[in-house]
Amino acid sequence: MNETVNTRNQPQAASAPGQDALVHALPRLKEAWTPSSQLVRFENAPLKLECGQSLNSFQIAYETWGQLNAEKSNAVLVCHALTGDQYVIGTNPVTGKPGWWETLLGPGKPIDTNKYFVICANILGGCMGTTGPASIDPATGKPYGLNFPVITIADMVNAQVRLIDHLGIGQLFAVIGGSMGGMQVLDWAARHKERVFAAMPIATAARHSSQNIAFHEVGRQAVMADPDWCRGDYHTHHKVPKNGLAVARMAAHITYLSEDALHQKFGRNLQDRSSRTFSFDADFQVESYLRHQGSTFVDRFDANSYLYITRAMDYFDLAAESGDVLANAFRNTRTRFLVVSFTSDWLYPTRESRDIVQALNAVAANVSFVEIESNKGHDAFLLDEPEFFATVAGFVNAAAQHRGLKA
Amino acid sequence: MNETVNTRNQPQAASAPGQDALVHALPRLKEAWTPSSQLVRFENAPLKLECGQSLNSFQIAYETWGQLNAEKSNAVLVCHALTGDQYVIGTNPVTGKPGWWETLLGPGKPIDTNKYFVICANILGGCMGTTGPASIDPATGKPYGLNFPVITIADMVNAQVRLIDHLGIGQLFAVIGGSMGGMQVLDWAARHKERVFAAMPIATAARHSSQNIAFHEVGRQAVMADPDWCRGDYHTHHKVPKNGLAVARMAAHITYLSEDALHQKFGRNLQDRSSRTFSFDADFQVESYLRHQGSTFVDRFDANSYLYITRAMDYFDLAAESGDVLANAFRNTRTRFLVVSFTSDWLYPTRESRDIVQALNAVAANVSFVEIESNKGHDAFLLDEPEFFATVAGFVNAAAQHRGLKA
Repeated sequence: MNETVNTRNQPQAASAPGQDALVHALPRLKEAWTPSSQLVRFENAPLKLECGQSLNSFQIAYETWGQLNAEKSNAVLVCHALTGDQYVIGTNPVTGKPGWWETLLGPGKPIDTNKYFVICANILGGCMGTTGPASIDPATGKPYGLNFPVITIADMVNAQVRLIDHLGIGQLFAVIGGSMGGMQVLDWAARHKERVFAAMPIATAARHSSQNIAFHEVGRQAVMADPDWCRGDYHTHHKVPKNGLAVARMAAHITYLSEDALHQKFGRNLQDRSSRTFSFDADFQVESYLRHQGSTFVDRFDANSYLYITRAMDYFDLAAESGDVLANAFRNTRTRFLVVSFTSDWLYPTRESRDIVQALNAVAANVSFVEIESNKGHDAFLLDEPEFFATVAGFVNAAAQHRGLKA
Repeated sequence: MNETVNTRNQPQAASAPGQDALVHALPRLKEAWTPSSQLVRFENAPLKLECGQSLNSFQIAYETWGQLNAEKSNAVLVCHALTGDQYVIGTNPVTGKPGWWETLLGPGKPIDTNKYFVICANILGGCMGTTGPASIDPATGKPYGLNFPVITIADMVNAQVRLIDHLGIGQLFAVIGGSMGGMQVLDWAARHKERVFAAMPIATAARHSSQNIAFHEVGRQAVMADPDWCRGDYHTHHKVPKNGLAVARMAAHITYLSEDALHQKFGRNLQDRSSRTFSFDADFQVESYLRHQGSTFVDRFDANSYLYITRAMDYFDLAAESGDVLANAFRNTRTRFLVVSFTSDWLYPTRESRDIVQALNAVAANVSFVEIESNKGHDAFLLDEPEFFATVAGFVNAAAQHRGLKA
């Protein structure tokens, strides 16, 4: 295996004419190609994918916080969700905003970076430095676009395994993730049992429901309906399917909140006006909010990545790979599990978490399950939920004792 | 008032060059301009709208079934939903499919056309013959497009009042409608109290929720993002914003079903294939179903009508017009009410119906309320729900006795 490790801001190996102009037009591409984070490239070290194809060379962009102890026994892998990235903590280089899970991780936080070595990698198929459809296809010198193979959650995890190998870590102390991050956690726990001491799948499911597939399909159709999508080849045409991706994000964003949260946040309040305008302007605050969500998302996310990642989620069905019996996926596990759901999450409702818990119980796994009372919908796992923080802190501390980690 | 009554297939008064070519290219426009149904035109008889503008001339396309009795006391007005039309019973001239509420209305049905004179009019802003954004603007000789004024539920009802006047009916025996049809029922009952003996708002709300506004906004943005929308002027450009309208319909369609219904109907079943294709084809049945819903909708519905009607629903807030106290809207009512909700309807959940019932109780109105157990979501009101049929039949029969109608 030929690995090239770049620390930060080192140019990507593959480079082609016209790329400078593209980055100038679309600064986001700089992070896709030459990420600000740590980077490891695997050259001529094929990653075999579930679809049957392989990626002969690929790169993983990741960040770490804290110190790996001498025994390499205090590593915590964070798996990010659909539109997340490796910037769990600290300023995001594209948005300039704080890390997306600073509520849960950091010095003195429930997962304390003074104690644990925390790792988060941009997922395979992403657009923040790990190889994905916006990356340069070495075969053509142009962005992959739709030539990128369709990937799965298992493929994402297999890429992460390469990173963990590269870091010399045998067993992760813990793997944690919410939403699609939780799917990766479940996949780690199912297919790499010996490498996960503790697993925390949060606000997630062992398979994507029919309704969730439906919402994703709406989003994909919105992107693909945009003429600026150019059948996936928009970078080459110096375009971006802004409108389609914004509509996809708007639809998805509704599913991340609860009706209650929307009602409390916006109700039927008008936006900067005292009465209806009798037009198609954003009269209501909720319209203005959604439009903002759509347009800012376009500035930070790649449309093809959105297609590929939603597809990977739709394809996720852990039981299907185990004779349609979810428990089989976890047979002989020695991992300790914490499963968490939130009462108002209608994207991954509590019954999906119960299915996971029942499967774990069926194989006598060590599992804690907590349903957190919250009116914030699916997004609750990213927000200020003290009961959630206390639950994670308690579970992690107990697991650390069992693992023999120093307090 | 100068009224011209056309029975069927009579050419519309306003006609302009190029219209024949448009109808040839888009047969649906024939029904928008010269509907197969009955038609009444109001010429130089301004309809004052809530936005402050007026329609100097307008037409209403409607259908009737059964016979109006000598006392004109047996008329039932059916109010249709967002994408409905006047073809409650009998073959729809655009789709060739049966009427949309034949489960509930017809000879021997819960609302028996052997006994009642049933009327349904295409709503103002619609595209099936009543004046809407696809109609010819007499000022320009071209389709209104965005020059059509933004209308409200009250405007739709005021247009229906004109039709009921035209038919010489003083008091309707009953007004019934589901979803947006229920909003019209509530508006009739609130603002035209003396003209409604019995009112049946089904699967509806007295105001559109924040989440529902959000879903509508996604649909509108999808339409307006389509370059073929041409800022509303697509007819003149001989285009149709097919992709945008299809995406809007797909998103909306998810909200009409329940997660349970989607799961039972499709689960994670694959469409005509034995395994995943690792592509963006419609692998799952639910994807194929949604794409079909989107594409067939485009053939039968006008994109601008979709914008205007969703806007009217968003603007609906009966309490807001009554000092923010919904009960005030119904003060002194003598109408008999039947309010119906369905357990799995998450678009208009039962609590929205309870709000209506509480307001009616607060003014000592005569109100029955039934929540029907169903796993079919919002669409349940259009489907085979025996308990719903029995409820409506019982209420209508009792009301008929009180009204002194012969059995």
